[in-house]
Amino acid sequence: MTIYLDYAASHPMTPAALDAYARAAALPGNPASVHAAGQVARELLEEGRARLAAVLHADPRTLIANSGGTEGNNHVLLGAAQAWEQQHGRPGHLITTLTEHSAVLAPARHLAQRGWNVTFLHPDRGGAYTPAQLRETIQPDTALVSIHHANNEIGTVQPTPELAAIAAEKGVAYHVDAVQAPGILPVDLSAWGVTFATFSAHKWGGPRGVGFLYVKRGTELPPVTLGGGQESGLRPGTQNTAGIYAAGVALTEAEGMRDATFGHLTHLRRHFMDAVQDIPDLRFNQPEGASPKIVNLTLPGADGEALLMNLDMQGVSASAGSACSAGTMQPSHVLTALGLSEADARASLRFSFGLGTTLAEVDTAAQALRQAARWSRSG
Amino acid sequence: MTIYLDYAASHPMTPAALDAYARAAALPGNPASVHAAGQVARELLEEGRARLAAVLHADPRTLIANSGGTEGNNHVLLGAAQAWEQQHGRPGHLITTLTEHSAVLAPARHLAQRGWNVTFLHPDRGGAYTPAQLRETIQPDTALVSIHHANNEIGTVQPTPELAAIAAEKGVAYHVDAVQAPGILPVDLSAWGVTFATFSAHKWGGPRGVGFLYVKRGTELPPVTLGGGQESGLRPGTQNTAGIYAAGVALTEAEGMRDATFGHLTHLRRHFMDAVQDIPDLRFNQPEGASPKIVNLTLPGADGEALLMNLDMQGVSASAGSACSAGTMQPSHVLTALGLSEADARASLRFSFGLGTTLAEVDTAAQALRQAARWSRSG
Repeated sequence: MTIYLDYAASHPMTPAALDAYARAAALPGNPASVHAAGQVARELLEEGRARLAAVLHADPRTLIANSGGTEGNNHVLLGAAQAWEQQHGRPGHLITTLTEHSAVLAPARHLAQRGWNVTFLHPDRGGAYTPAQLRETIQPDTALVSIHHANNEIGTVQPTPELAAIAAEKGVAYHVDAVQAPGILPVDLSAWGVTFATFSAHKWGGPRGVGFLYVKRGTELPPVTLGGGQESGLRPGTQNTAGIYAAGVALTEAEGMRDATFGHLTHLRRHFMDAVQDIPDLRFNQPEGASPKIVNLTLPGADGEALLMNLDMQGVSASAGSACSAGTMQPSHVLTALGLSEADARASLRFSFGLGTTLAEVDTAAQALRQAARWSRSG
Repeated sequence: MTIYLDYAASHPMTPAALDAYARAAALPGNPASVHAAGQVARELLEEGRARLAAVLHADPRTLIANSGGTEGNNHVLLGAAQAWEQQHGRPGHLITTLTEHSAVLAPARHLAQRGWNVTFLHPDRGGAYTPAQLRETIQPDTALVSIHHANNEIGTVQPTPELAAIAAEKGVAYHVDAVQAPGILPVDLSAWGVTFATFSAHKWGGPRGVGFLYVKRGTELPPVTLGGGQESGLRPGTQNTAGIYAAGVALTEAEGMRDATFGHLTHLRRHFMDAVQDIPDLRFNQPEGASPKIVNLTLPGADGEALLMNLDMQGVSASAGSACSAGTMQPSHVLTALGLSEADARASLRFSFGLGTTLAEVDTAAQALRQAARWSRSG
């Protein structure tokens, strides 16, 4: 039996979400249709959206359903850039960070190739960014700031409301990739004061292939995919009724258990860290106050890929960082941004926990890591 | 109980597809992860893709999973245009038709605004395009031809292999929007000889939010969304394991019943047409040889929206055309392209059938239409 400690990569769909999905997917109506079958579909879809809006503290009309976090991040960066270029007739300035997910970094690099001035903020040793740092980076032609809320590799939680306030003060749009937050950390879009926010349902027990983009009311954002007028004209294509409904059901469920989840994950992480901390030279990379879902550690001198394979043979599924970069054999860009050497970054592992993770699994995984470390050093 | 006659807009997920979805969605692994949990997910995902490839007569590696037909159509038109512009340093020529889905028309119009020369071919009275017509339209700078296989409003089936052969002869890439074909009409991508093809799983009983883009081996196409390297680098984002697997299971099932489905739909359509044909002045718009899924009819002088509402009150869900254009109050662009007046286009209805449709439902719907027509003319 595999011990799955890669919840930051993906969370399985919960039974309640699957049940909601099955009920909705058996219905035929396309929610864009005006007839009764369409209306039934539309009601389920809007119930899903309303559930999401209630948890995230947003007006339902500001939540655009799409296919996930990657699409949402691309939509904001490429869409906001297009709107800026149309208004100003030239490329502008984008501020993002060295520790974003590849779904932000890749469009940011694309914009740089297209003539945009892109600033990649450098994090402190814990992966955080400060309001002062953002304030001094904003220029008169800054079109957008894009900074994640919780880091997907080391769990750092950014001071999003304070960062967004700086951007608002300067009249600059602020995008937060909040994919790793819901179900574990509080999300309050109205209090955060952000312009855009990206979410992905499979991180909280909803279905894969379903995400949401928050677009603050009154914000100009063109669609980047063109077709029918679905999702307020911002995201064409037949709406995924069952997926959106199930995402809402899963988020209501996750939010109801959020405090308990946070406590459970904090306990699991403490237990795991205690059980492995006497492995010689082992260092933890997640900072104080990080999302309790994640432990990121370095075993200097070890080969991370080999460690992972050894753990895998012992039945433990962990990772070297983002699944979206898995198999690339590149050291984690997040860890090197923190100041780790390439060798240390390659000697690092991420363990991430979920509500379904048990203390016994964590114990077994810790023993497996101790054994993998011994094996690695005897090699 | 609603009689659902809008299968061209969406088909409910079949029980087998839902069962496959549920089994896969309860598993945690991200198929991009290298560990055991990731491998289990990857195997399911690739089984789904292999099932699709077997039915569509394609190499599995040529099928890129995405979020649906709208994304696929956009990817081909915008991606091929981008590749052409990078190679030639200027906009090129695009050939498409007046009777495409809005997910092709909208990016085509966008390219026209961007300086592309876009030819919209005019159909014959039955909605068809001929190889001769395509041959005389191709120019030295034609970058792409994009013509659907089966029309979503009137069911016209295009001579895709012959059309694609003309494009191939001229060295021009050929894209077919084949969204309305699988499960009803044969699809043989290797025999068709097309460069690109677009599919959407919810049209054959698979999940919504899942589609596939066929890209012939050796074809240059850039991704239009940027991020991780998933789907051969062409479509980033966590892969929808359960959705892709269920899409494959549903297509295997639909293909196994395709002949029976074709016969059943042909029978239903004949029955429906016989039952309504003596409604005064009624005309059918679908041509000989059209997909048996669709009846499109005009009741000259009637108000199509009002007819639909009347049918809806009688428990029959039909449509005025594409659900993706529903509620826009525009007359169908497909019907006006056939030569119908705007008034006649507005007086037109689409009924579309599925394997689950019964003869009794079709009878009831025909009686409801007769009643709606009488009501309309007495008003």
